[in-house]
Amino acid sequence: MTTANNKKGVILEGRVLAQDFPLDPLTKKILLEITPPSMGNNQADVDRVRKELIKQFGPVRVPLSLMQYIPYICRETDWQVTATVGYNGSDWELIALEPGNTTDRHYGLAIDIGTTTVVVYLVDMLTGQIISTASDYNGQVVLGDDILTRIFLAVYENKLPDFQKAVVTTINNLILELAGKNAVNPEEVSAVTVGANSTMIHMLLGLDPSRICKEPYIPVVNSPGFVRASEIGLRVNKLAMLYSFPSVGSYVGGDVIAGVMVSGMHLDSEVSLFVDIGTNGEIVLGNKDWLVACAGAAGPALEGGVAKAGMRAAEGAIERLSIEPGTLAVSFKTIGDVKPIGICGSGLIDCLSELLLNGLINRQAKFQDGCKEFVLVPATESGTGEEIKITQKDIDDLMRTKGAVNAAVETLLEGIGCDLASVSKFFTAGAFGQYLPIESSINIGLYPDLPRDKIRLLGNSSGEGARQALLSNQKRLEAEEIAGRITYFELNANDSFFSRFVGSRFLPHTNLDYYPTVKQKLKDRGLLS
Amino acid sequence: MTTANNKKGVILEGRVLAQDFPLDPLTKKILLEITPPSMGNNQADVDRVRKELIKQFGPVRVPLSLMQYIPYICRETDWQVTATVGYNGSDWELIALEPGNTTDRHYGLAIDIGTTTVVVYLVDMLTGQIISTASDYNGQVVLGDDILTRIFLAVYENKLPDFQKAVVTTINNLILELAGKNAVNPEEVSAVTVGANSTMIHMLLGLDPSRICKEPYIPVVNSPGFVRASEIGLRVNKLAMLYSFPSVGSYVGGDVIAGVMVSGMHLDSEVSLFVDIGTNGEIVLGNKDWLVACAGAAGPALEGGVAKAGMRAAEGAIERLSIEPGTLAVSFKTIGDVKPIGICGSGLIDCLSELLLNGLINRQAKFQDGCKEFVLVPATESGTGEEIKITQKDIDDLMRTKGAVNAAVETLLEGIGCDLASVSKFFTAGAFGQYLPIESSINIGLYPDLPRDKIRLLGNSSGEGARQALLSNQKRLEAEEIAGRITYFELNANDSFFSRFVGSRFLPHTNLDYYPTVKQKLKDRGLLS
Repeated sequence: MTTANNKKGVILEGRVLAQDFPLDPLTKKILLEITPPSMGNNQADVDRVRKELIKQFGPVRVPLSLMQYIPYICRETDWQVTATVGYNGSDWELIALEPGNTTDRHYGLAIDIGTTTVVVYLVDMLTGQIISTASDYNGQVVLGDDILTRIFLAVYENKLPDFQKAVVTTINNLILELAGKNAVNPEEVSAVTVGANSTMIHMLLGLDPSRICKEPYIPVVNSPGFVRASEIGLRVNKLAMLYSFPSVGSYVGGDVIAGVMVSGMHLDSEVSLFVDIGTNGEIVLGNKDWLVACAGAAGPALEGGVAKAGMRAAEGAIERLSIEPGTLAVSFKTIGDVKPIGICGSGLIDCLSELLLNGLINRQAKFQDGCKEFVLVPATESGTGEEIKITQKDIDDLMRTKGAVNAAVETLLEGIGCDLASVSKFFTAGAFGQYLPIESSINIGLYPDLPRDKIRLLGNSSGEGARQALLSNQKRLEAEEIAGRITYFELNANDSFFSRFVGSRFLPHTNLDYYPTVKQKLKDRGLLS
Repeated sequence: MTTANNKKGVILEGRVLAQDFPLDPLTKKILLEITPPSMGNNQADVDRVRKELIKQFGPVRVPLSLMQYIPYICRETDWQVTATVGYNGSDWELIALEPGNTTDRHYGLAIDIGTTTVVVYLVDMLTGQIISTASDYNGQVVLGDDILTRIFLAVYENKLPDFQKAVVTTINNLILELAGKNAVNPEEVSAVTVGANSTMIHMLLGLDPSRICKEPYIPVVNSPGFVRASEIGLRVNKLAMLYSFPSVGSYVGGDVIAGVMVSGMHLDSEVSLFVDIGTNGEIVLGNKDWLVACAGAAGPALEGGVAKAGMRAAEGAIERLSIEPGTLAVSFKTIGDVKPIGICGSGLIDCLSELLLNGLINRQAKFQDGCKEFVLVPATESGTGEEIKITQKDIDDLMRTKGAVNAAVETLLEGIGCDLASVSKFFTAGAFGQYLPIESSINIGLYPDLPRDKIRLLGNSSGEGARQALLSNQKRLEAEEIAGRITYFELNANDSFFSRFVGSRFLPHTNLDYYPTVKQKLKDRGLLS
């Protein structure tokens, strides 16, 4: 894994996270000073340990696999032992018993499983802070690029076990990397939380995803709750529990629930709009009284590999780009500050925006004067020895993505009878949401033209939600409550969506009055009278 | 397995058991008529099933291993399914989901694991009745005859896994036998309860028994509670829970707790005495306000294989025996009504009693006039072609057993300051307790000389206790409560015990006034002036 790629995951690392909730992690560690047995006090070992735990937690289950070690562990350090106790959603269970006092070492993992990228956060359960982050491509990518392909292969070619193994292997390798870097034994990881979309959760748990993509779109489970992490092969303490964020349905997954929770929009009296753009775009609208969500295929235009020069956000990818008015000289920044080898999603959006603002394409997003492409980097300056350019087809793909997201937002607002002016906050989430340039995203009409102070970048809110649920039972219950509150709004059942989608193939929008700041920019540059 | 051997286990079978508690079995089966999903009702499959369960049970955990099958099971019978839900001591969990209505088939197992014999009862959870019983020697017998040998081998020759495997294999074979005979799929068994002594429970669960037999006698666990039956390899539904009766300590095990529960002495305002004689003798004295227990090695004299002609209670064993006064002709009854091949515990006690009442041995239990043995069956009439006889050594062994039990009862009564007259009921339990002839047991002083209407045979109360705990959560909690209430009385710490043991080598007792009915019999026969 390159440093540049790693950057994707470090968006939460390095800064001290504000803790707006009290620490109440899924597992607790406590030191037990146990009275040793004697002829006058011959209680059995396990019952003796349990008696101490009951004082703190009430009834605590002791798994058989731990019972057999308890006599040895207790006698190794003369009955001073550290218990790790975990909550499994309904009761407390002993997860580990260690000799001596190890209460200063208490670890959990928060995991964001994206279709493309997996990010694992090693969390200090004592402080709530992220100790270290590791990320890598989801190992499923090499088996099937997009979600639908993966579902197809899982269902029709019996590859579900391969997909499960691939993502578990990815996570396990990241766990080993984190463990090595931070001198933590994976056995010391006592709890795991995961934010991911429904298909990723199904594949992680080995559940049949076949009905996710066919009417009436019924997942196997929306609220998997807690399962034993070792049951799916995760290399952590074999009694550690894994909590998966609940989903609302096939297309509004746990990653979105995590995002809503992190945004706080579900507690706000004012209305917020939450947008997570990946291969699918998920949109949530609402406040403390109501929450409505919709989802639609945004298309893979931003995911790399679609545009001719497109690539994922890895080293050598152009991530920011500008074109100087007049000279049309292209400036850019690459990930890792090396020679460019391609362009990633954020670069593509900058590029489309700059082509528009410099009059190189018209408002229908077409090149002018018979031109069919625009060279961003000449062959001599690129890292591959070939020129990096954007073609009309690349732009058309990007327009479909922006059109789908835009139409979905408008259809949802209209369907709910809410106008954009009443939206007090606009949250962007997900891997793209973190990196998409706001101004360019507005210029091309991907984001609505709102006052900039209303726009909030949530970063990897799926991972941050996982961290919060790892650290707070109350947050975990909040996630379940959000999932239960969200009403799903079916875009496909709505005629308005398709006509909006077709009509939204203008830059930034068919109706320029919806985009006053972009209209002004175009006027300022003499592109509009 | 022979029919005769099987007889050992059938003591509860065939008669309709009075149910003095309401049926509230550890697992429940209910029919779910689930609304199928549709575009307007697209809840996920697992959540859909869980929603129905919550109506009846509150929160119900759905194990991952079941989640994956739920979509198929529900669709197989158009969303009419039968759920088996089990209680694991703290919350409810889905154990099975079957297509269609299978609520008329609901099975559990109650198991009594004796050091020598294992009895498995197949219980109908709908009626509470025993459908069928199977029993066999505990497979551990061939590895080590008595408990101390087994502990030694487990600890010093690392044979614990072998002992665990042996008893699990015994149980599994009995399960297969019951399943085959009664057309029940072992997968349909959704709960298992076990009554057994502490060492048997340790070996069943794979727990180190080494500290059971050395000061300060600390078991690994007294209250194992619920563990997954499949975790120890039992061939039942792999999500079925196994509940083990709690023990009070190393020497007062779950079998005794089960016996006390079945006797009802813990609810009685009058004082009862409970005696379970096996290799060890366990004695409980008390009432609804207090319970005291003691235990001591009774010796293996009654278990077969010690006496020269001794054998276990299997086909061909002399189980009842009498000697005609005057002619000294021996009449007997064998198990299976076949030619005798040996004599089992009950036959030995009859024999000793008859030898005494016919003046063939004196009150010191010694043959008279240089005689060293007594032939019970001549070679021509025995099934082996050899004569069956009782020797002085056999009698001496038996005297040690009766002495130990008698001394323990007297020491406990004295220690508590309770006299025999205030004992309102005398319960005998365990494999021997069921079969020992009461009059002969009193004649030799093994049992106290109480009015006969005070004496109650509990049968296999360990198995019956297991059946009750299987059928009633309240009974299960009652067992835990009994275990918590019993005070252990240490015989070895009591000088009186040893002097009583030494002094009790008279028939029936050093002080004949303790045995007025026996004294009268001896007088009637002219053996006492």
